[in-house]
Amino acid sequence: MVQEQSQTALLNDGFGDIPPLREEDDQINRDWVDQLVDLIATDDSDEVKAFMMPLHAADVGDVLEVLSANDRMGLIRLLGDEFDYSALTEIDDGIRLDLMDELPNADIARGVQELDSDDAVYILEDIAGPDQAEILAALPTFERLALRRSLDFPDETAGRRMQTDFIAIPPFWTVGQTIDYMREAEDLPDDFYQIYVVDPTYNLLGTLALDRMLRAKRPDRIESIMNNNVIDVPAEEDQEEAARLFERYDLVELAVVDDSNRMVGVLTIDDIVDVIQEEANEDIKRLAGVGDEEVSDNVWDALRSRVTWLMVNLVTAVLASMVIGLFDATISQMVALAVLMPIVASMGGNAGTQAMTVTVRALSTKELDRFNIRRLITREVLVGALNGVIFALIIGLVATVWFASPLLGGVIGVAMVINMFAAGVSGILIPIALDRMNIDPAVASTAFVTTVTDVVGFFAFLWLAGLAFGLL
Amino acid sequence: MVQEQSQTALLNDGFGDIPPLREEDDQINRDWVDQLVDLIATDDSDEVKAFMMPLHAADVGDVLEVLSANDRMGLIRLLGDEFDYSALTEIDDGIRLDLMDELPNADIARGVQELDSDDAVYILEDIAGPDQAEILAALPTFERLALRRSLDFPDETAGRRMQTDFIAIPPFWTVGQTIDYMREAEDLPDDFYQIYVVDPTYNLLGTLALDRMLRAKRPDRIESIMNNNVIDVPAEEDQEEAARLFERYDLVELAVVDDSNRMVGVLTIDDIVDVIQEEANEDIKRLAGVGDEEVSDNVWDALRSRVTWLMVNLVTAVLASMVIGLFDATISQMVALAVLMPIVASMGGNAGTQAMTVTVRALSTKELDRFNIRRLITREVLVGALNGVIFALIIGLVATVWFASPLLGGVIGVAMVINMFAAGVSGILIPIALDRMNIDPAVASTAFVTTVTDVVGFFAFLWLAGLAFGLL
Repeated sequence: MVQEQSQTALLNDGFGDIPPLREEDDQINRDWVDQLVDLIATDDSDEVKAFMMPLHAADVGDVLEVLSANDRMGLIRLLGDEFDYSALTEIDDGIRLDLMDELPNADIARGVQELDSDDAVYILEDIAGPDQAEILAALPTFERLALRRSLDFPDETAGRRMQTDFIAIPPFWTVGQTIDYMREAEDLPDDFYQIYVVDPTYNLLGTLALDRMLRAKRPDRIESIMNNNVIDVPAEEDQEEAARLFERYDLVELAVVDDSNRMVGVLTIDDIVDVIQEEANEDIKRLAGVGDEEVSDNVWDALRSRVTWLMVNLVTAVLASMVIGLFDATISQMVALAVLMPIVASMGGNAGTQAMTVTVRALSTKELDRFNIRRLITREVLVGALNGVIFALIIGLVATVWFASPLLGGVIGVAMVINMFAAGVSGILIPIALDRMNIDPAVASTAFVTTVTDVVGFFAFLWLAGLAFGLL
Repeated sequence: MVQEQSQTALLNDGFGDIPPLREEDDQINRDWVDQLVDLIATDDSDEVKAFMMPLHAADVGDVLEVLSANDRMGLIRLLGDEFDYSALTEIDDGIRLDLMDELPNADIARGVQELDSDDAVYILEDIAGPDQAEILAALPTFERLALRRSLDFPDETAGRRMQTDFIAIPPFWTVGQTIDYMREAEDLPDDFYQIYVVDPTYNLLGTLALDRMLRAKRPDRIESIMNNNVIDVPAEEDQEEAARLFERYDLVELAVVDDSNRMVGVLTIDDIVDVIQEEANEDIKRLAGVGDEEVSDNVWDALRSRVTWLMVNLVTAVLASMVIGLFDATISQMVALAVLMPIVASMGGNAGTQAMTVTVRALSTKELDRFNIRRLITREVLVGALNGVIFALIIGLVATVWFASPLLGGVIGVAMVINMFAAGVSGILIPIALDRMNIDPAVASTAFVTTVTDVVGFFAFLWLAGLAFGLL
């Protein structure tokens, strides 16, 4: 429950009845948006500012997302200097890029100057080269150099995501000195949770959480209360590796160091939460073959992100058809085979997807390691075989009754065992093999696994039936 | 890079060459584990303690996971009072439950007493009733009441996940008074990032981040520097809703309030990171039909979690077969239909899965709302139709050439358009409908969507072919 929302109405009482920003179910309130849209239409900057004033930047982001493209630009224009650019870090990439295209570079430069460096980089990194250079050129030297340094690190690394403002102190200071320093320092980060203890070359010696410092006495020396178990991450490291350190050690901040082990920035938990969310989203979407599609994507973007995978699937489907084609003479003599054959392929496809999904996820969360890989392979093979036996009995009985042929029931049963076994084996080995070849198993596994289960399913069933009924 | 690991070797130099705990790729080092297992075998408690001493509790958890069940119990026994029970919050549920079964309840009671209440609840919540009661009975009254209160809230709520220790102060205190209070207080939480300002009935008035307090002067009054925009969450609220507040407002702590709006605890970001990770994992696993399976599950558990979904799939596969069975006379006259029919069904199934995955994920991250639902439905319908046209042309051409029949190419093309359209429509509408009926769309959508695309695919293709070739 966000009480600030109920206060919105109080703060804005000049406007009569302002509905709450969010409905019971936490979605943005249509009535509230209608009032905002009306205000934007009046072009009255002061009234719009007063209406938007009580909102958290994150809520402004959510509001921007539900507005039309025109109202979005109108709102930002009317808010003028009071528009907090950190709201842009909360919206879909597509919408942000459209806005960046339309906003004058000078305005963007003024806006990102107010932000913490990690938020500024997040906004700037997707802007095209020339515009990005123009914006950077309009910034004060110190900010420009810090942002450029972050932008020079590759996408999705710790260096790219880091915040370059942090508090670094020498180990010989006392708690009192440190508190006094913070009371007077000008350029502190917006939010911070720990202090970094460094030597003169910015080598990290220890960290000190603010709560520890507050529990210490003023004359205590920093080095006597700091945490010596230093955890840091190289700037070139993948952001997912950094996220794993946060998860493992329950961190809220993590020092980022350069090649020579000098501390250059910090990662904060709010950015890492986004990384974790993104990573899981990527796995889900890639397994389903929808690329990096977003909810805000239009028809063309969605189509583009999906066609590739459908094209791959078409090839594997045609391959499976060709396997069936090998047995057209058999089928023409016994049409029941055509009726039953999709069952074997479909069950194998599903069992393969189950094994594959568990494997892909375990690889991406690093739960699959050298200690359990053998056990997991054995497990999948056994699960596949057991599933095969269970469903062979069921489908064998169904087919026997349906077509009054125990032989046909036996054939589909054996084919089921074979295909479920193939599903288990391919479901675990294919993702592991792709991972070893440094190919993201989430992207490519589905295609390979379903090809195996389709081909094996159709072939085993039709070939066994041909043998059993003498139709080959 | 966790420098504490390289220090392990230094701290343990009495043991000669101790390898690092983790390899380059961050996995636990086999050599290190071998040394530990050898030590456990010697039954020398002091040596084991010295060996394990430099490890973070999270690393102890990872080590427990890779040990055999016997070594696990041996390690905990040898560590005795020095075993930090918070390590148990880092391991798979299955392994934790096995350990809880084997450990004496008195030991568990002693162990959880040292923990923050949220960690204690996390460990206790899955223990069976009688054992749980025995452990609780062995705790001091204050701890017992706090834990029981949390355990009384339903599973997966904010109340169940909260930490009951927090710092609450009156608004009229000064910064100096507050700092002095914290220096002397005994029972502070292990880690905290903000202070809560409450009235005498524990109604939340504001919050104060530690960094703000450190930047203020000692005589400053708390109410003049606190943050009045109070965000809180009711104890009965689903933990996923709480997680969304953390994500939206970049929080590190969030107050939990009871029915009468009294503050009863706080949620911390480390628990929320686990919630976010769990939630995404649930979606992935449910979409693939593997329930709540874990990597540590054995063959039987894995089998059980997967059989349900395969059983559902068997029913839908038989249903699809029965549709084919309707056209057995048609197929027996033209066996090319049996060869081509899986292509239409498979393409529809994949396109449906794409639309469905995007929808399920958008529902679960609340990105799908009343502002974009119409646009998204329109988008999916259009994407479905366009995909239909694209792949109709391709497969139409393939079939025409393969079977030297333009009519057959035309039939499969039209069937493809129909099924891709059905895939788009069912891919978005089925999850939305399930969500409206309060059924988790991740669990049930796949079954319904693939049933639609199988049935529509086989029916459209075989019926149209029967019409076109006069075979009905």
